[in-house]
Amino acid sequence: MWLERELQLAGKSCTVISADQITDEALVFGVGGMGAPTVGVEKLDARDEYLHPVRALEKLLGQSFSAVVCGEIGGSNALVPVICALQMGLPLVDGDGMGRAFPELQMDNFNIMGVSSSPLALGDSHGNVVILQKVDSAERAEQYGRAITIEMGSSAALVMPVMNGVQLRLSLIRGTYTLAHQLGSAILQARKQGQDAAEAAAAVGNGRVLFRGKIMDVERKTTGGFARGRLQIAGFGSDAGEMLIDFQNENLIAYQHDEAVCMVPDLITLLRLEDGEPIGTEMLRYGLRVAVIAMPAPRELKTEKALRVVGPRAFGYDLDFVPMAGNLIE
Amino acid sequence: MWLERELQLAGKSCTVISADQITDEALVFGVGGMGAPTVGVEKLDARDEYLHPVRALEKLLGQSFSAVVCGEIGGSNALVPVICALQMGLPLVDGDGMGRAFPELQMDNFNIMGVSSSPLALGDSHGNVVILQKVDSAERAEQYGRAITIEMGSSAALVMPVMNGVQLRLSLIRGTYTLAHQLGSAILQARKQGQDAAEAAAAVGNGRVLFRGKIMDVERKTTGGFARGRLQIAGFGSDAGEMLIDFQNENLIAYQHDEAVCMVPDLITLLRLEDGEPIGTEMLRYGLRVAVIAMPAPRELKTEKALRVVGPRAFGYDLDFVPMAGNLIE
Repeated sequence: MWLERELQLAGKSCTVISADQITDEALVFGVGGMGAPTVGVEKLDARDEYLHPVRALEKLLGQSFSAVVCGEIGGSNALVPVICALQMGLPLVDGDGMGRAFPELQMDNFNIMGVSSSPLALGDSHGNVVILQKVDSAERAEQYGRAITIEMGSSAALVMPVMNGVQLRLSLIRGTYTLAHQLGSAILQARKQGQDAAEAAAAVGNGRVLFRGKIMDVERKTTGGFARGRLQIAGFGSDAGEMLIDFQNENLIAYQHDEAVCMVPDLITLLRLEDGEPIGTEMLRYGLRVAVIAMPAPRELKTEKALRVVGPRAFGYDLDFVPMAGNLIE
Repeated sequence: MWLERELQLAGKSCTVISADQITDEALVFGVGGMGAPTVGVEKLDARDEYLHPVRALEKLLGQSFSAVVCGEIGGSNALVPVICALQMGLPLVDGDGMGRAFPELQMDNFNIMGVSSSPLALGDSHGNVVILQKVDSAERAEQYGRAITIEMGSSAALVMPVMNGVQLRLSLIRGTYTLAHQLGSAILQARKQGQDAAEAAAAVGNGRVLFRGKIMDVERKTTGGFARGRLQIAGFGSDAGEMLIDFQNENLIAYQHDEAVCMVPDLITLLRLEDGEPIGTEMLRYGLRVAVIAMPAPRELKTEKALRVVGPRAFGYDLDFVPMAGNLIE
């Protein structure tokens, strides 16, 4: 709804460009929301919540930004950069830092490829702005940023990282806005033609439908600025079994018969069974009928270096990453 | 010891100037440590811990600072500005924001007189710097700053507020370095001449000795970035009674016979009985023999406006401020 209003105000759509169109010296910024999505859905955004921290960084750097970059393409964080681009009259780069969503700041390919997490700016809906001017690691940015986000009501506007064109091309996971658009189009078309939306989406994402069932239980606690929990889905039919999914803002590991069948960084996505509407962890509730889709992570996230940051062990699981089964084209 | 080393390195002493010597447009900065003094005593400071946040603010403002100002004249925070002044080759202004020490950021006359708390910078011993670029109140600065300080290990370098000469003259509590020097000289002289150091100090501070006794108990917890607790002192002799003192980093209220005999913003100061050495709340321990001195707060802190920020109610007590008794010259 916010995006619709901004499109109306701008009187035009957002210009999406390739990373190749950014000159080596030009500065771009990543942007998104930090905090628990469970809080995000209840909070009214101020229209300029994202502009204040962007302007503060421009002031600190003494240089204007040339384009907007998406920090994570998942959930509402895919739309925030579009809104920023519209508000600032800047182009949006086709791609993002994760090729999915992850709960923590350091879990993006910008950091994995060595882009500094500072300067970083956080803003709240009162116009307050906090800048991490210098941090010695992305984990420190996560630690300090999370503490500030919690004080900001567990939901903050986040501007990071600041990159030049060279760094952007080195670390961007490309084409993810295009992919998101294709996924959305496939779902809309399936709906229109009365076809299975989950199958259509899985096909676009080079994935497969893992499970279909009804949500029986959601164990959930919003702690430390995260929405953490475990989801239980019962299959249809008496011998269909169940699927368990652990999440921390995002779905982390899907289990069947006590075995992990899909794990981070591969994507576990829930769609509403009847129409393929995506279901974020903040919308999980008893009785929802869902399809669980697994899609392979972008290959940038599956290097040894990347898995140390976004693999199952980075989330505290004593598991080595096993790529999802049935992933034919890799 | 740190100060001694810096004096040696500088090869000269620190220049102390009057606020009147700062031009209207020149910028000055307040500086001190934020956090629990109980942590501060255990932590090794990095030599440049304070310089990083100062330089970060200069970069943000695009202007160099002309002088150093003390945020609070109590405890180690009286020495930090001297060290900064020596390291930066800047003069130190004679005065501070509190005329004593207070545990929270908003509790200074800079804020009481309307000087903005932002921009504000915090630094840790790893060179990390966080800037509160814009906050809507001093209480917000305290809230966000405290959260960051806790992440920094409950001890951080704090640079705030940034003021011009006009604001400085409006809000500075003047002459407190001179007063501190007089207090110290009186104690040293009393020591040398075998006189009562507590009486000598009280006379300089226009105060009186409230109580003498032995520390029987210290209830203490370091929570929320503060060292909070209650102190019990037993008088000498069987009918000498006892004194209780509540503290939150600083001593807040002294009780005798269940009655508050001295309360914030008036000063409650403990000196070691034998030689008048000051005893901060981080050094309290069973068995110490102490004199408790009460000294009247500077008059700037006793206006109706100031008492809302630094009176007993600001610390959660259901008490109206009653100035200390026996304070003849006011």
